[in-house]
Amino acid sequence: MRNVKLTVAYDGTNYHGFQEQRGTGLATVQEELENCLCKLAGRRVQVVGAGRTDSGVHARGQVVNFDAGEWPIPVQRIPLAANGVLPGDIVVVAAEEVPADFHARFSARAKTYRYSIWNDRIPSPFHRLYSTFWPVPLDVEAISAACSCLIGRHDFKCFQAAGSPVINTVRTLNRVEVTREGPLVMFTFNGDGFLYNMVRIMVGTLVQVGLGKIKPETVKMILESRDRLQAGPTMPPQGLCLEYVEY
Amino acid sequence: MRNVKLTVAYDGTNYHGFQEQRGTGLATVQEELENCLCKLAGRRVQVVGAGRTDSGVHARGQVVNFDAGEWPIPVQRIPLAANGVLPGDIVVVAAEEVPADFHARFSARAKTYRYSIWNDRIPSPFHRLYSTFWPVPLDVEAISAACSCLIGRHDFKCFQAAGSPVINTVRTLNRVEVTREGPLVMFTFNGDGFLYNMVRIMVGTLVQVGLGKIKPETVKMILESRDRLQAGPTMPPQGLCLEYVEY
Repeated sequence: MRNVKLTVAYDGTNYHGFQEQRGTGLATVQEELENCLCKLAGRRVQVVGAGRTDSGVHARGQVVNFDAGEWPIPVQRIPLAANGVLPGDIVVVAAEEVPADFHARFSARAKTYRYSIWNDRIPSPFHRLYSTFWPVPLDVEAISAACSCLIGRHDFKCFQAAGSPVINTVRTLNRVEVTREGPLVMFTFNGDGFLYNMVRIMVGTLVQVGLGKIKPETVKMILESRDRLQAGPTMPPQGLCLEYVEY
Repeated sequence: MRNVKLTVAYDGTNYHGFQEQRGTGLATVQEELENCLCKLAGRRVQVVGAGRTDSGVHARGQVVNFDAGEWPIPVQRIPLAANGVLPGDIVVVAAEEVPADFHARFSARAKTYRYSIWNDRIPSPFHRLYSTFWPVPLDVEAISAACSCLIGRHDFKCFQAAGSPVINTVRTLNRVEVTREGPLVMFTFNGDGFLYNMVRIMVGTLVQVGLGKIKPETVKMILESRDRLQAGPTMPPQGLCLEYVEY
């Protein structure tokens, strides 16, 4: 086995998420990648992704790995070759050979997600696909205070989409931050793992804090309730981006 | 007459330029704006635009004016009302009432255009619609030296698209600048008027300088030649944005 790791950036607007949805005819990032690698390698290639981003979610640093087998192309030339074949909204940023036991998903130590809100009375045509438009002013200082409640090892069950089959909902968040740059309010989450829709529900809850509807310290109580109904709504997908994966 | 000035931002990706192309069935920004205002005002509305941006060209500060007649809506509420009707890639940023003799095109004193190049070995899926991908490194210092040759009152005939019917090709450029922010190389042009494709041909010529194919001082000779064939190629539309119009 010749194990190759690719770092992939994509605009998820036109995809039904990262993961292959066999037999549905829906375009996914994984299928585009596999089709591209198959064309280049001349045989069927299967990739494993670090995170299953949802429909409309973006990535600057998704990671995949695949068995390059006898494929004669030097690893460092894969980005150029792949980008010549891929559609413009998916880009292979980097490629490297990794040990045989490297697994994009199971070897990941931490992931960083960013969620962007366009917080202005007037929407932006240029940010509409990469942020969520929110015209009511958000109090970033209050949100920042609430963010600190989320840092650490906690049971994040209240921030997991209802109906998810995952039993162990304990995760560790190393960094939870909010910053404002002009109209853009950006949330950054770094953690060892994320439950289904966890970032989008956490942001939905923090937005309630930013609107003054709940107090920053209430977020701690919501977390302790382990009850999805206590948390805020799930924010839309287009504000979310998988920034990078650490190994 | 109640003359209303609107400042409009748009992502030009999905439009065949600003100007209405009657009977072609092609979507244009002007038609979308007129359809929107027609829905709001309950009668046919015609807008006049400051600049006719081409297919795929964007705007942050296009300006239009129209006769609001007896339309009862307060001017300051037009942005909110219009943005509720317009598609997400066209946004009314501001509205104000102006004197009856204000004409978005003929009253304009100066316009600012920006052209963006993504100058990196690896393309960006997030900038692909708003910049031109150029993988070969550009020497921004050399380009900057060439920019100064373009400032002032000159005959810009060599930078006008071949076949244009415009006779007087003398224009004044007040500001021509190039800056780099990471992989983004951005050209800014401020002038009292622009010939057809003038910015895209100027950038095509400056890129030749950035590649070392022509010297910065040669740009002065190209300008003096008044010969389109001496200038560089026309750059693609998606890097171009009409930033603002001064009155």
